[in-house]
Amino acid sequence: MHYSFASRAQTLMSSPLRSVQELAKRDSFISLAEELPAEELFPLSSLAESANAVLSADPRSLQYGEAEGYGPLREWLCQSWKRRKSLELHPDQILLTTGTQQAVDLLVRVYVDPGDRVLVENPTSPGLLQVLRLQGARIIPVEGDGEGILPDHLASMIKIHRPKLLFTAPNFNNPTGCVWTLERRRQVLSMTSGSGLLVVEDDSLGELHFPQDGTKPETLKSLISMEERQGEHVLYIGSFSKTVAPALRTGWAAGSKEVIGMMTAVKLMADWQSSMLNQRMLHHLLESRHFNLEDHIVMLNREYDTRLKLMDQLLKRSAWQQASYSLPEGGMFLWVKLPGGLSGDTLLKVSVRKGVSFLPGSMCSPGEDQDDYIRLNFTHPGRDELLLGMNLISEAVREFTARS
Amino acid sequence: MHYSFASRAQTLMSSPLRSVQELAKRDSFISLAEELPAEELFPLSSLAESANAVLSADPRSLQYGEAEGYGPLREWLCQSWKRRKSLELHPDQILLTTGTQQAVDLLVRVYVDPGDRVLVENPTSPGLLQVLRLQGARIIPVEGDGEGILPDHLASMIKIHRPKLLFTAPNFNNPTGCVWTLERRRQVLSMTSGSGLLVVEDDSLGELHFPQDGTKPETLKSLISMEERQGEHVLYIGSFSKTVAPALRTGWAAGSKEVIGMMTAVKLMADWQSSMLNQRMLHHLLESRHFNLEDHIVMLNREYDTRLKLMDQLLKRSAWQQASYSLPEGGMFLWVKLPGGLSGDTLLKVSVRKGVSFLPGSMCSPGEDQDDYIRLNFTHPGRDELLLGMNLISEAVREFTARS
Repeated sequence: MHYSFASRAQTLMSSPLRSVQELAKRDSFISLAEELPAEELFPLSSLAESANAVLSADPRSLQYGEAEGYGPLREWLCQSWKRRKSLELHPDQILLTTGTQQAVDLLVRVYVDPGDRVLVENPTSPGLLQVLRLQGARIIPVEGDGEGILPDHLASMIKIHRPKLLFTAPNFNNPTGCVWTLERRRQVLSMTSGSGLLVVEDDSLGELHFPQDGTKPETLKSLISMEERQGEHVLYIGSFSKTVAPALRTGWAAGSKEVIGMMTAVKLMADWQSSMLNQRMLHHLLESRHFNLEDHIVMLNREYDTRLKLMDQLLKRSAWQQASYSLPEGGMFLWVKLPGGLSGDTLLKVSVRKGVSFLPGSMCSPGEDQDDYIRLNFTHPGRDELLLGMNLISEAVREFTARS
Repeated sequence: MHYSFASRAQTLMSSPLRSVQELAKRDSFISLAEELPAEELFPLSSLAESANAVLSADPRSLQYGEAEGYGPLREWLCQSWKRRKSLELHPDQILLTTGTQQAVDLLVRVYVDPGDRVLVENPTSPGLLQVLRLQGARIIPVEGDGEGILPDHLASMIKIHRPKLLFTAPNFNNPTGCVWTLERRRQVLSMTSGSGLLVVEDDSLGELHFPQDGTKPETLKSLISMEERQGEHVLYIGSFSKTVAPALRTGWAAGSKEVIGMMTAVKLMADWQSSMLNQRMLHHLLESRHFNLEDHIVMLNREYDTRLKLMDQLLKRSAWQQASYSLPEGGMFLWVKLPGGLSGDTLLKVSVRKGVSFLPGSMCSPGEDQDDYIRLNFTHPGRDELLLGMNLISEAVREFTARS
């Protein structure tokens, strides 16, 4: 039968994201392409306890619940943000989602009409670009440097394009790992306040902050909260996928009641609600005396920092002499500029034949300006996998640099 | 701040579905409006065992997994359908979703452009209508009788409108509870085969079949499978929400590899994947020696049949003398035509003040032709709730019928 798919559905099939993920399923294939946390660090036994407690306590843990998500977990988030981020929100301002990706998708569905202009920090995550393409948005990249997006460039893009949305990730941008300076945050906030532009702050990786000196990146949202006691023009999104476990599929969107109300309405239509069971388990875990999220995150950060340092060491080898990168202070990725204009897509083809993958920079930008970058994940592979994987990519790099 | 929502987003807020659900949260409010299974019948302890087993066995139960869903669960579905429904499918032809609602939403997103015509069995579920409205589909109702949709009407709608999709629920239509006859299924299948029309068969309620004589409603998909050994023009959707538990949020779409591939691509973008933890727990439960799904369903059906009979008794009281309905052989709902042209919306307003709700027929149709119907759920309320709830609605009915 000939199927008449919707006109923009083909944007989904043309994505190389799926083929990279398909590859990772092969035996003994090493993927540095994905956004996976280390599964050996999951709080398995604590969660088994929580599952047992939740399922023994109340049959409603298996029933349908509220589209907004489990009330006590939204309450927990408010208290945690208040204490840790000086962020004042009411539970009614939170929608629990099936991860950050769903938060992005729901917002774009209720906010963007085909042809609407949307600003994205450049480079950005492939998942965001795909959502915007399917919705028919006109994607406008905003350039940045090591301190965040460039206020002058942002100002001119706002003036020229009159965009509806700005997508940012000020804490450990995916893919670059950049953390915006406080100064840059303030500039962007004051520039966008009152402009009619809704700013989305993706804080998915914000807790993966390695320095053990107690400092924490600030969030845009808490800045507004502190300085203006409102924050209606920032939507704050994130998830527990990187701090607890992805399979709980629990993320959030937090912002004004009006935006959250509309997102809840589309959530109800999209899948009624995420799993009450998972949300109750997570809430039980977070309230449990046997588990402390902050200690758990410290442990994760110590281990991930070790892995990052190993990857950094491996990038000091000769194959990478002409490559360049900034060592991030956290997150999950190293963003590497390849030597001699070598393209990430080309390098990927050769690397895949050797049994390793990474994310080519082309997938992180609406244009072609990131084609000579690659994104390497350092959180998932164990020591041996990381050594072998980096050896294989180094071999592939040498094949090109030896030629030129 | 003034938010510039997308043009069709307002279709979400105008829906009375949310306000009906809001009401149900009030203390001592009785809802006969929702689609809830009885939580006292959930296999709680078996699922606690499964959670424990799955979390002890493999840390990957908390990791990201495949967008298509957990492979062994898709395999289990294939084997179960083959044995119980003579339905031959490969696991690659199945996408696991966050319930049936998500299956509908994903299909519509990849298949329907604004203005495309879509046929729906009339009346139909409010969730389907809302998805179609948000996507901008032109919704064309197809009329039916007690034996299924009317072949002649279907033929003329196909001829006039050249629609892309036909949505059906041949086993216990929501809301009517109608089960199509075998003859009617054959006619619809042969009429749509080769027409370029994709037929969606929603089998969410198909297992809730009360007669204990071993007969089962057939599915469209198995008919095709049996008669033509293909079935590319039917997409089969359903879930475990009504047979095991909603909070596992596990449903499916099954069909041709091409359609499933496209739906998987949009699933990846919508939320990456549903919960691997829930899917592994469900698979463990289904394979467990301590749980038998078929026996469990027999138990559910016996209990639900008792509740349906009680509701039937209550509808024999004088207030309902001029009302009419057909007693369904299963499902979750009684679909009642109100006396004397009384409108469901009007009756709802009065009932809500008395502390009880139901679903007004207006929400189940793209037009106004179902306004004098109401949908009553009999699976969730216990005996006392059902008695009290029906008393309150009867009172409300009497207020109107006494007047006229």
